[in-house]
Amino acid sequence: MRRTASDDDLVAFRATIRAFIDAEVVPSFGRWYRDGLVPREFYYRLGDLGVFGLEVPVEFGGSGHNSLAYRGVLAEEIARAAVSFGGASAHLARCLPLITALATPAQQARWLPGVVTGDTMFALAVSEPGTGSEPEGMRTTAPQTAEGTYVLNGSKTYVIGGVHADRVIVCARTAPPRPDDPAFGLSLLVVDASAAGFRVGRRLDTLGRKVSGTAELTFTDVRVPAADLLGDPHRAAAHLAVQLPQQRLGIAVGAYARAKAAIRFTRNHTRDGVPITRPVAAVQHTKFELAGCRAEVDAIEAVVDRALSAHDRDELDPAHAASAELFATETAGRVIDRCLQLHGGAGYLTDSPIARLYADHRVDRLQGGDSDTLRTLIAADMGL
Amino acid sequence: MRRTASDDDLVAFRATIRAFIDAEVVPSFGRWYRDGLVPREFYYRLGDLGVFGLEVPVEFGGSGHNSLAYRGVLAEEIARAAVSFGGASAHLARCLPLITALATPAQQARWLPGVVTGDTMFALAVSEPGTGSEPEGMRTTAPQTAEGTYVLNGSKTYVIGGVHADRVIVCARTAPPRPDDPAFGLSLLVVDASAAGFRVGRRLDTLGRKVSGTAELTFTDVRVPAADLLGDPHRAAAHLAVQLPQQRLGIAVGAYARAKAAIRFTRNHTRDGVPITRPVAAVQHTKFELAGCRAEVDAIEAVVDRALSAHDRDELDPAHAASAELFATETAGRVIDRCLQLHGGAGYLTDSPIARLYADHRVDRLQGGDSDTLRTLIAADMGL
Amino acid sequence: MRRTASDDDLVAFRATIRAFIDAEVVPSFGRWYRDGLVPREFYYRLGDLGVFGLEVPVEFGGSGHNSLAYRGVLAEEIARAAVSFGGASAHLARCLPLITALATPAQQARWLPGVVTGDTMFALAVSEPGTGSEPEGMRTTAPQTAEGTYVLNGSKTYVIGGVHADRVIVCARTAPPRPDDPAFGLSLLVVDASAAGFRVGRRLDTLGRKVSGTAELTFTDVRVPAADLLGDPHRAAAHLAVQLPQQRLGIAVGAYARAKAAIRFTRNHTRDGVPITRPVAAVQHTKFELAGCRAEVDAIEAVVDRALSAHDRDELDPAHAASAELFATETAGRVIDRCLQLHGGAGYLTDSPIARLYADHRVDRLQGGDSDTLRTLIAADMGL
Amino acid sequence: MRRTASDDDLVAFRATIRAFIDAEVVPSFGRWYRDGLVPREFYYRLGDLGVFGLEVPVEFGGSGHNSLAYRGVLAEEIARAAVSFGGASAHLARCLPLITALATPAQQARWLPGVVTGDTMFALAVSEPGTGSEPEGMRTTAPQTAEGTYVLNGSKTYVIGGVHADRVIVCARTAPPRPDDPAFGLSLLVVDASAAGFRVGRRLDTLGRKVSGTAELTFTDVRVPAADLLGDPHRAAAHLAVQLPQQRLGIAVGAYARAKAAIRFTRNHTRDGVPITRPVAAVQHTKFELAGCRAEVDAIEAVVDRALSAHDRDELDPAHAASAELFATETAGRVIDRCLQLHGGAGYLTDSPIARLYADHRVDRLQGGDSDTLRTLIAADMGL
Repeated sequence: MRRTASDDDLVAFRATIRAFIDAEVVPSFGRWYRDGLVPREFYYRLGDLGVFGLEVPVEFGGSGHNSLAYRGVLAEEIARAAVSFGGASAHLARCLPLITALATPAQQARWLPGVVTGDTMFALAVSEPGTGSEPEGMRTTAPQTAEGTYVLNGSKTYVIGGVHADRVIVCARTAPPRPDDPAFGLSLLVVDASAAGFRVGRRLDTLGRKVSGTAELTFTDVRVPAADLLGDPHRAAAHLAVQLPQQRLGIAVGAYARAKAAIRFTRNHTRDGVPITRPVAAVQHTKFELAGCRAEVDAIEAVVDRALSAHDRDELDPAHAASAELFATETAGRVIDRCLQLHGGAGYLTDSPIARLYADHRVDRLQGGDSDTLRTLIAADMGL
Repeated sequence: MRRTASDDDLVAFRATIRAFIDAEVVPSFGRWYRDGLVPREFYYRLGDLGVFGLEVPVEFGGSGHNSLAYRGVLAEEIARAAVSFGGASAHLARCLPLITALATPAQQARWLPGVVTGDTMFALAVSEPGTGSEPEGMRTTAPQTAEGTYVLNGSKTYVIGGVHADRVIVCARTAPPRPDDPAFGLSLLVVDASAAGFRVGRRLDTLGRKVSGTAELTFTDVRVPAADLLGDPHRAAAHLAVQLPQQRLGIAVGAYARAKAAIRFTRNHTRDGVPITRPVAAVQHTKFELAGCRAEVDAIEAVVDRALSAHDRDELDPAHAASAELFATETAGRVIDRCLQLHGGAGYLTDSPIARLYADHRVDRLQGGDSDTLRTLIAADMGL
Repeated sequence: MRRTASDDDLVAFRATIRAFIDAEVVPSFGRWYRDGLVPREFYYRLGDLGVFGLEVPVEFGGSGHNSLAYRGVLAEEIARAAVSFGGASAHLARCLPLITALATPAQQARWLPGVVTGDTMFALAVSEPGTGSEPEGMRTTAPQTAEGTYVLNGSKTYVIGGVHADRVIVCARTAPPRPDDPAFGLSLLVVDASAAGFRVGRRLDTLGRKVSGTAELTFTDVRVPAADLLGDPHRAAAHLAVQLPQQRLGIAVGAYARAKAAIRFTRNHTRDGVPITRPVAAVQHTKFELAGCRAEVDAIEAVVDRALSAHDRDELDPAHAASAELFATETAGRVIDRCLQLHGGAGYLTDSPIARLYADHRVDRLQGGDSDTLRTLIAADMGL
Repeated sequence: MRRTASDDDLVAFRATIRAFIDAEVVPSFGRWYRDGLVPREFYYRLGDLGVFGLEVPVEFGGSGHNSLAYRGVLAEEIARAAVSFGGASAHLARCLPLITALATPAQQARWLPGVVTGDTMFALAVSEPGTGSEPEGMRTTAPQTAEGTYVLNGSKTYVIGGVHADRVIVCARTAPPRPDDPAFGLSLLVVDASAAGFRVGRRLDTLGRKVSGTAELTFTDVRVPAADLLGDPHRAAAHLAVQLPQQRLGIAVGAYARAKAAIRFTRNHTRDGVPITRPVAAVQHTKFELAGCRAEVDAIEAVVDRALSAHDRDELDPAHAASAELFATETAGRVIDRCLQLHGGAGYLTDSPIARLYADHRVDRLQGGDSDTLRTLIAADMGL
């Protein structure tokens, strides 16, 4: 069936990415996986390829696309090989939208060229150890000196791409909360990772996403120039909230990509995988399981494509973004689990693609608002 | 979020149908339900309203729409009141497409005007007692006399609208099967219900769809003129197969309509329903259940709207139609079950709308190919 | 595997019941179903058989068993034929335990002989139209006159067996609630159905349980002698609460019985049912579905047998009773649904046993505390 | 509710194991996890504790228990701390039963003392790279020389505890299959890991079970004395099949243990875990989720306890063992997944217990016969 987002440019982009992954990612990925990190140089290659500039204006070296469809293709091709681009996901999907939405022209001119080439890798630091990501609980502080410089102290966790980041967008308290607005008082600071007092702490070992370079960061009297404030002062919570629909759609897209890839790997495994006995795919139950999975992935595709179109028309409302994320991540979770099951014991080895998709996917049901947050949001939209 | 099929005509049609249902169906429906039948006159009213002519060419008294979207609106409005139009569903969704696809111009001129007004209600008779609907098992016969008249003998079951039908499209054996084509040899005959030897047997009591007028029919030497053969002789199986994608989409649309209505009834019930204690909707678990249901119904909507668009562009392939039906009916089943659960004991009474939606829906997972047939079809499309 | 409750007496009892059902219930059940009622005389037959006296002391004509296992056998045999004993379930499982627990020796001498023979059929009336069954909402009143006679006014709904009941245990307000005990002030009155002012209102049509004789009752100045108070005055809520674990176990037992029967009908249907094409049971997917169902029913059996043993040792605590009911009813619901699915269209006809089991079961997930009440109770036991 | 297997000895054993785990496993487990291996010395400590001698006759240094209940306690306590005893599981649960069932008195005298003390760690090698574990596909050979020595060549994979094993029970072809018995011709050889030609190949990285020391083994002309044949020659397939019910019960027990532990961790996490905002457990949805999980774990407990009793009475038949494994592993999978979900992002870190339980459990649904094998077996028992 015809998908909404599909034109010649996307087809060409897909071919480029697929060839790149086959040639430069798949052969090295086993090593990266054991190291728990992609090499820093890899990000320059992504810059060369144009991956980081897709949605960046042409004047700053980008391609100026106004559609999320390119990111969708990227997600599909990455999942198709069951690999990962490491911290590039945070750089591209979390930081870049903040910069294009909030940075002043001068800041854009300073930062975007490096974003595009991969010379300046960005990360986003919001959650804190022990308190989560709710504004009220944030203990990282950045009061301004008389000259306007922010002095940053505190620590952050779950910073995807934190190991390699050159610049980190840090959410810190710059003013006390207001009684009528508990989310007031936080600001976004674009912190230079080479600044004194900036330290990359322990790397976090997670069930999947093994090469994402997720780390804790600590800041001890890190001096951040006033010119590196991103957006309005004290309004970080609002700035981050505006990004949520797009972020949630991005998570839905990733879940779709992994579920689709899971079916492909499983079909191939069951059709070709077992040399002695008859192919597993000759077994009716296997066919039925895969057909059931296909129907569910078709549904995720319909949901995601509709939401992508809505997003590109600037019509994606928060409730539908939440609905799309909830449905896509829950459904993809079931699909990938069933696909792993059809692999038998082979599915338990981390060098089997399905095992990596399984582990990588699990966090999709936990981030961008876990499923309870999403349900709360949808219920509110229903007048409940 | 914007739905694909929505323009001014559809909005106006929806308003007309809603007003009609509120005024003429809801007040009588309790009685019809106890009788197990809609009154014959009701079909004339539907004819007056233009319901039967939506997809009929203007020259035969219809509106000439080229879109299934009108039927979608109809399904939604019927479900919204948890009522039923009785055997009209078979007349409109099963028989009319066969006539417009297969009837000769002369036949169309004879039959379509009566179809549109409701003067000639059609039904479709394929399944037989004890043998199901596979061509190989069919025992109803209609050999031709020397003059060309078919002489029909046998019985049919599960004939929706059979009680009131004026004309029944009967699938009967007119030639033996061919070794290389076991589906060969069946023909579609448009049998006049007033013909000698035509008998309406017992009405079938089903879990839901209580007013559908489903019955067994028996034919004893019923003489059917050669002019009442529909389509090519001996090719009934192929003719029926061509209709399957549209039929499956229709079932998916019905499932969507009921699931959406189930949420609405449940939201109202839980918000307004319990006078003494606090409203059930104030309970977080209820909110979360309903939000989860909404995300699933959003997904069914995306699937159904995409398939409707594909159908109207003549691009709906059998595998995607099967996928849409499988997903829509299974998902709607879960949604409606959870909605009934949120009603507590009240949901068990047949005069509560949710109980009727629940019982009416159950057959959607069994018809148009049960879920195993659908999975077989999808698996084949996956190369399995 | 050996079941906990199984000795020679149970085996003999099972054989008796099975023979009785085959001979006297199955042949008539279609008629009863269409009538929506078992005939009054049927209850005398059950009395003759000893069904009502299982747990009644020998001195009052019963068998004096101290085990729920007999009721378990009864439930299994009834489900095995997909029939019903009408209002006998309320008489036996709801009313009799209240009488043996609460009635004075004099009351037992008055009532139990009639209970055992079926001459005096009991029903229980707690829920009220529009307000449910919470004590705070109850509006039926029964103040005492100076001489001690209660004067009963109000109405009750969902009274199982209400159509044929000779005596109804009615929960009515006899004193105002206390600020510190909102459940105080209700009493249980054993009302004579032939008393002036006692009226059987409309029969309730439910999705299943079609012959249960469920009705609304209204009371207009019904005079109830003081000697017909059951238990302590004003303590009905506490008296009813004490019965909940046993009642919940009874519901779990019924769910088990129906799920087990569903598998049996489905195995037979799929193995023997389809004359032309190959048996459905030759299809691997069918086997796998049924095997999955068997594993779930084995689990329900383990849960129910463990709870029955605990009950007979007087060790069944409320949380485990709730857990058993929640697990048994939810799991049985899934099993029966999948079994119906394996029947295809035949499963939608009410004269197919699986359709009746499906519809009869649905209320098990709604009664004895719906699933939310059960979860609340279990959570409290977990210290949440 | 009273569990079937519980007496003073078990209580004491549980206390010993719990204290040991707290003192000697938990403090080191993070390091072991990063190393991907428990230290060799750990197995001596388990020997000292008596863990390996539970089911070994007293004459060989064991405790001579005739019940699997001790192993059940072990599994519960290991899961309770979300740790692992490494390859001890294969030594204890897979190899020891083979030795006690098949070894001659002389072999028992030679091997069991070392088994009990941990001086001789055993592993079992059946599956082969690329061909799985079906007898027909096995390519490891061990023909006998004229003097009776077996000469072993081939490789094995998925050998749990293979890294540290001193003796490996290897399944190898010693005779060609028979036309009427394709499983004939394989023998079990107890191979000394210090023998020439025995090589431990690569360690396998799996989603969970990170310290199990699972490895590939290769054998190049390894000479195995005739005295080290275990059981009857050429009958390995039958010998292994006899162990399957016990092995499946063991998997069910492990799944139960992990699911129960998952609830405990989640209750603690949600009750105590979040310092700033209100405890998650105050949220009704969390309570309901955990209550639903508790009801499912209660059911697994009932199933497992019933099967343990049956096993200890020597009455556990293959179909019920398969049913118990299928139900326990599928249900535990759902429970642990929901528990992880209630942890939010913290559940994705491998140093959170729930993440380890989640990953460790996943293989339980794949081993001991994956779920399809189990369903086939159960279906056969149902006459399908």
